[in-house]
Amino acid sequence: MHKAITPVLILAQMFAILPVQGIRGQNTSYLVFNWLTWSVMYSFIVIGMSILMVSFIIFNLYNNGLTYDITGDIVYFGGSLAVYIVFIHLAREWPKVMERWELMEREMKQYGYPLNLAFKFKILTSIIILLSSIEHFASILTGVLRVIPCSSDGLDIFRAYLLTSFKTVFTSINYSLLVAIPLMFFDCLFSFVWNFMDLFIIILACALTNRFKQLNQKLDSVRGKVLPSIYWRKSRETYNILASLTHDFDEFLSPVILLSFGHNLYFICLQLLNSLKPMHSSWEALCFAFLFTYLVGRTCAVSLYVASINDQSKKPKGVLFSVPAECYGVEVERFLTQVSADELSFTGCNFFSVTRTFMLTVAGTIVTYEIVLIQFNNVASGVADQNNTFINICP
Amino acid sequence: MHKAITPVLILAQMFAILPVQGIRGQNTSYLVFNWLTWSVMYSFIVIGMSILMVSFIIFNLYNNGLTYDITGDIVYFGGSLAVYIVFIHLAREWPKVMERWELMEREMKQYGYPLNLAFKFKILTSIIILLSSIEHFASILTGVLRVIPCSSDGLDIFRAYLLTSFKTVFTSINYSLLVAIPLMFFDCLFSFVWNFMDLFIIILACALTNRFKQLNQKLDSVRGKVLPSIYWRKSRETYNILASLTHDFDEFLSPVILLSFGHNLYFICLQLLNSLKPMHSSWEALCFAFLFTYLVGRTCAVSLYVASINDQSKKPKGVLFSVPAECYGVEVERFLTQVSADELSFTGCNFFSVTRTFMLTVAGTIVTYEIVLIQFNNVASGVADQNNTFINICP
Amino acid sequence: MHKAITPVLILAQMFAILPVQGIRGQNTSYLVFNWLTWSVMYSFIVIGMSILMVSFIIFNLYNNGLTYDITGDIVYFGGSLAVYIVFIHLAREWPKVMERWELMEREMKQYGYPLNLAFKFKILTSIIILLSSIEHFASILTGVLRVIPCSSDGLDIFRAYLLTSFKTVFTSINYSLLVAIPLMFFDCLFSFVWNFMDLFIIILACALTNRFKQLNQKLDSVRGKVLPSIYWRKSRETYNILASLTHDFDEFLSPVILLSFGHNLYFICLQLLNSLKPMHSSWEALCFAFLFTYLVGRTCAVSLYVASINDQSKKPKGVLFSVPAECYGVEVERFLTQVSADELSFTGCNFFSVTRTFMLTVAGTIVTYEIVLIQFNNVASGVADQNNTFINICP
Amino acid sequence: MHKAITPVLILAQMFAILPVQGIRGQNTSYLVFNWLTWSVMYSFIVIGMSILMVSFIIFNLYNNGLTYDITGDIVYFGGSLAVYIVFIHLAREWPKVMERWELMEREMKQYGYPLNLAFKFKILTSIIILLSSIEHFASILTGVLRVIPCSSDGLDIFRAYLLTSFKTVFTSINYSLLVAIPLMFFDCLFSFVWNFMDLFIIILACALTNRFKQLNQKLDSVRGKVLPSIYWRKSRETYNILASLTHDFDEFLSPVILLSFGHNLYFICLQLLNSLKPMHSSWEALCFAFLFTYLVGRTCAVSLYVASINDQSKKPKGVLFSVPAECYGVEVERFLTQVSADELSFTGCNFFSVTRTFMLTVAGTIVTYEIVLIQFNNVASGVADQNNTFINICP
Repeated sequence: MHKAITPVLILAQMFAILPVQGIRGQNTSYLVFNWLTWSVMYSFIVIGMSILMVSFIIFNLYNNGLTYDITGDIVYFGGSLAVYIVFIHLAREWPKVMERWELMEREMKQYGYPLNLAFKFKILTSIIILLSSIEHFASILTGVLRVIPCSSDGLDIFRAYLLTSFKTVFTSINYSLLVAIPLMFFDCLFSFVWNFMDLFIIILACALTNRFKQLNQKLDSVRGKVLPSIYWRKSRETYNILASLTHDFDEFLSPVILLSFGHNLYFICLQLLNSLKPMHSSWEALCFAFLFTYLVGRTCAVSLYVASINDQSKKPKGVLFSVPAECYGVEVERFLTQVSADELSFTGCNFFSVTRTFMLTVAGTIVTYEIVLIQFNNVASGVADQNNTFINICP
Repeated sequence: MHKAITPVLILAQMFAILPVQGIRGQNTSYLVFNWLTWSVMYSFIVIGMSILMVSFIIFNLYNNGLTYDITGDIVYFGGSLAVYIVFIHLAREWPKVMERWELMEREMKQYGYPLNLAFKFKILTSIIILLSSIEHFASILTGVLRVIPCSSDGLDIFRAYLLTSFKTVFTSINYSLLVAIPLMFFDCLFSFVWNFMDLFIIILACALTNRFKQLNQKLDSVRGKVLPSIYWRKSRETYNILASLTHDFDEFLSPVILLSFGHNLYFICLQLLNSLKPMHSSWEALCFAFLFTYLVGRTCAVSLYVASINDQSKKPKGVLFSVPAECYGVEVERFLTQVSADELSFTGCNFFSVTRTFMLTVAGTIVTYEIVLIQFNNVASGVADQNNTFINICP
Repeated sequence: MHKAITPVLILAQMFAILPVQGIRGQNTSYLVFNWLTWSVMYSFIVIGMSILMVSFIIFNLYNNGLTYDITGDIVYFGGSLAVYIVFIHLAREWPKVMERWELMEREMKQYGYPLNLAFKFKILTSIIILLSSIEHFASILTGVLRVIPCSSDGLDIFRAYLLTSFKTVFTSINYSLLVAIPLMFFDCLFSFVWNFMDLFIIILACALTNRFKQLNQKLDSVRGKVLPSIYWRKSRETYNILASLTHDFDEFLSPVILLSFGHNLYFICLQLLNSLKPMHSSWEALCFAFLFTYLVGRTCAVSLYVASINDQSKKPKGVLFSVPAECYGVEVERFLTQVSADELSFTGCNFFSVTRTFMLTVAGTIVTYEIVLIQFNNVASGVADQNNTFINICP
Repeated sequence: MHKAITPVLILAQMFAILPVQGIRGQNTSYLVFNWLTWSVMYSFIVIGMSILMVSFIIFNLYNNGLTYDITGDIVYFGGSLAVYIVFIHLAREWPKVMERWELMEREMKQYGYPLNLAFKFKILTSIIILLSSIEHFASILTGVLRVIPCSSDGLDIFRAYLLTSFKTVFTSINYSLLVAIPLMFFDCLFSFVWNFMDLFIIILACALTNRFKQLNQKLDSVRGKVLPSIYWRKSRETYNILASLTHDFDEFLSPVILLSFGHNLYFICLQLLNSLKPMHSSWEALCFAFLFTYLVGRTCAVSLYVASINDQSKKPKGVLFSVPAECYGVEVERFLTQVSADELSFTGCNFFSVTRTFMLTVAGTIVTYEIVLIQFNNVASGVADQNNTFINICP
């Protein structure tokens, strides 16, 4: 696992997240977190940059009052800042978590190591990276398309795009290419970090589900057979190790999950609201369709991968109910009690636990929130003139 | 069971679904799925047709943008396509599932075979077929009534009806009776397949509930009696067989249930929204009343039949609590644990489990979604002129 | 109990509900249901009358289409019809249910009979009867106040009131006092039957809760004491008798509960919607305030009385957890399992179980439905002219 | 605990709440409730004042009909009245509750006393007092700012502010400074009492959570170790004492929790609705931002502190699942049953139990209610002219 996840972590460090040392080491004992390293410093530079952006937004907020655009910016940049801070916290916990994982792996040695896991990680990473690049490109394209009517000649477009995209910055300071280029770089970084967060959750959930699957397969193969008590004790202990590992992982990951679900939910609502606005061209519609599909798809993927932990952790029930009366004993009973009473899943800071049922609830919540946003939109547009915003697009 | 369900399956194959061989055989060992048979080929022709329809719709979508009509068509034809694909998958699983069922029947031989089951299946099938025919006729009638003002002489009406019904097709290609007749045939097929899907769910749920009822009746007859441990063990094992059969059936049926509930929910919402539009004639109102009542009634029937599995599976609790202290032992305890901890019911891909409580939630959801649709309708009608649609009805 | 409930049943029979014989008998063995008695015949006359009213409404519906007034009438008269039919069913079940209750009373002899129960029943009945009379009078007053501007002289008012109240009838046949007086009588009957239904639920819930309370008091008095296993067995068996009695009562009462909650919910929503309309006079406002408060209060009372069954049935938990280790055995364990796993409460046909948590959900649902009704009101008032309805009030 | 909470109680008595004697005593045996003391009399004066205010409001309501302002006043003053009455009830129960707490403290002597608890209480109290003072000042400032355009010279402003704030009073009687000053004093009292209520809940929840934490820490230190049955029995008994104490506290506190959540929910909805109105100056916006943030923050703090009881009470599960098979016995099993089956948390009169999941539900409810309020606002503003209210601000 430690080795399988190495390429993902290298990638993460390129984007200034999870700045932990020794990720290329042979085993987890090489892992260490150190404040005085380049990667941590890199993270802090990005954090500093986020703080700068957030203060620009607050300055803007004080001048112009609360508008839709600013709310979106607050969620986006404030969220990015929170993610970076959370990931520094995660980096400090990472060595401990991986150590526990390695311990579990040693205990589950007889189950063998899932060979295709490292490969699966690489595939998942590639897909997310590819799609997130397209997403970033599509969102830039949308911005450029929107400012086309503002500029007369071709060269001007890019400048106009930068001016509208980073309006919060360029209303405070004058436009200059020297400022715009790092801004674009950081924007790209922030856009990636949200994708990476989802990827990170998927990969950890995937690794854990895999282990539960191994246990379930072994249990399934002995369904209805008469086995000694010691066998059930071993299985129960393995299950218990996985269960406590799930709890550890949950404690470790839950702020990330809360951030990820909050972010995805907010932007799905926002995009749904945007879908009510008229589109200017079919290219814009295409970009929007892709952005929206990808956002929903990614949210579903994260939810389904995380929910599969819960699904798999409930599977042993069937086998345990079918244990023949001859070998039913206190160990089988304890195993059954644990499977029934212990609700294993990742949670968002204990506010919600991610299961398939939760996904339905989230879908319902999105619809409900949508109503509020539409209502609010109607009320707000009655107060402020909506035509104004159309004119304001060009800087 | 295998024999009782035979007429239903023959009917299914007439409509190109569940193309499995040997449904007329003496027992389940005759059942086999084979790719190279006429029935599978027939299914593939219908699937091909669905794909053609869907591509027509996508072509239309690209030209005209997203409208209400197109959304409905996507759900209808896309759903039909999904159903056919799912049923080919089910056909491959069918022999295995029926084998397990036969195994259970052999285990439960002493409970006797419910004689009236085959008769009940026939009655249910007849009712659904009759009502779905009326439904199809009523929906054609509605369409014809709507185009009456468009045509001057009588003969023209049918042509106008076809033009409006298959607008997606006839905006791309020219009208011709040679195209229209197969279109009507496939439309009839698709209309039936949704009804059959609900029938299929009802029949399987009914068969399973029946078995639980048999067990409960036997248990009820020994309420409060002192019985040897071996009796409770036998009963528990029978219950466990039924429980694992329910899980198998659930895994097998859950995509169908998800599709069925999604489809019914969507069309109930759509019909409720349509009910806000003014009706042109009392015939149209009558058709609408029938269509809506039938849709709601069918959804309730499916829900209630499926929910009764859960209701029946909880019934043994009362008997087990009343077991006298003299013969209370580990077997009764295990039985009780299983009845309490094992949530038996059909689920929609684990997203929801169909119980009576769930039905109330669905009713609440329909109301909530209704609000969204009304809201969206208001917003959309502000953008596009609503008068336009009235004029556009006539081709 | 049988004797305590006698006055309530006599009252019921005056209003043609629960037509069972022998309610004045010494014990439950006198109770018998007979089709050929005066009380059953009386019920059938009222049922016939309800059917007549419903057919008038359907006739009206066919002529005028679906309006708010007619929807309210359908729910009111259709509901009354359903209630009468359900109560004939209940009358047939009543002897069996009371027999089981008497059995339980014999088993619980050592707990003593709650003396004040009969008195409590009388108080509850008097309060409900008093308030429902005021309610009926207030609703008549509202109707009379509304038609005051329609008539010039004083005598005419009553006629105008009758014409508007029974519009459904008097649009079909000519006005005549001979028709109006029985109509008023039946209207009074129907108005009472809804109140009696709630009273009936409250009284049965109250009687059951009382028994649970007795058991809990006895258990509470031995908290933490060392007692022989036989004591716990006796207590568990008593609890089990109460539990199965609750299930029997639930099966018996659940259609009534479903009807009562549906009716109350519907009319709370309707009254809330009416509260948005402008009031004509302060008398009308006062009447409205009373009607609304009484409706909400009655619904809360029913919910709270029914929910207290669930509350009381959970109480033994605390005592069982505090059983000292010395006398903890299989009986205490079984008792605890039953208290934890058996969800005791009245349900609305298993769709919902009435607990305190459910009350909160209902409150939330009312709010949500309110939105829909307001929305629907806005949409509908856009189609049909609202001024029209104001003019139509006067016949 | 008794000593740690003393300063909080002294503060409470300054604001006429919890008028219990002997709070400065050495132990809980000094605590006694006496009707004939100065503090109780002080409470009754405030209650009398509240009743006066409520009757002024009802008088106003009868004259002007139901408006938004009056609804807010009813909730505010009616709520304050309810709080004072509840706290007199609490004062009578306080000695009993503290006695039970002291009993628990004696039982848990070996766990040591959490030293920093008294300090934590002081910090919490100071923060709440400081913020509530700022809140009260900010709300006065908002009122003053709103009446600035009404007065020509500076001295008049304060008078105008008093006239608008206590409009309900000064529409009935003439303005006089002699009346206005006590009004301001009581207003300040009522404003504080809501803050104190939340503080009181937080402090009791905090004390209870602390005890659960101590138990969990001790259990965590023996994770996986082989220990005699007597150890588990002791731990279970300690847990049981804490569990029954939680139930006692819950019964004692639940009306306060219901009031606090109802009040906070109502005012969050109201403030959200107010946020849609245009602000007149940036000072007003700042005040609003502070008031809203503080309200939401306080509600979250109460919820999180109370929810942590439930979180902590579930923690022993993990340790119990990891108990080695050698020392697993009936005591561990009982412990596990209790932890699994006993839902420990504070509840709002059993209508809801405060957990982290509940917090999410509340957030969702606020959004839903918001929609209703916006809807109602639109409908109401259609009936009554909205411009009118702007003019009416100046007395």
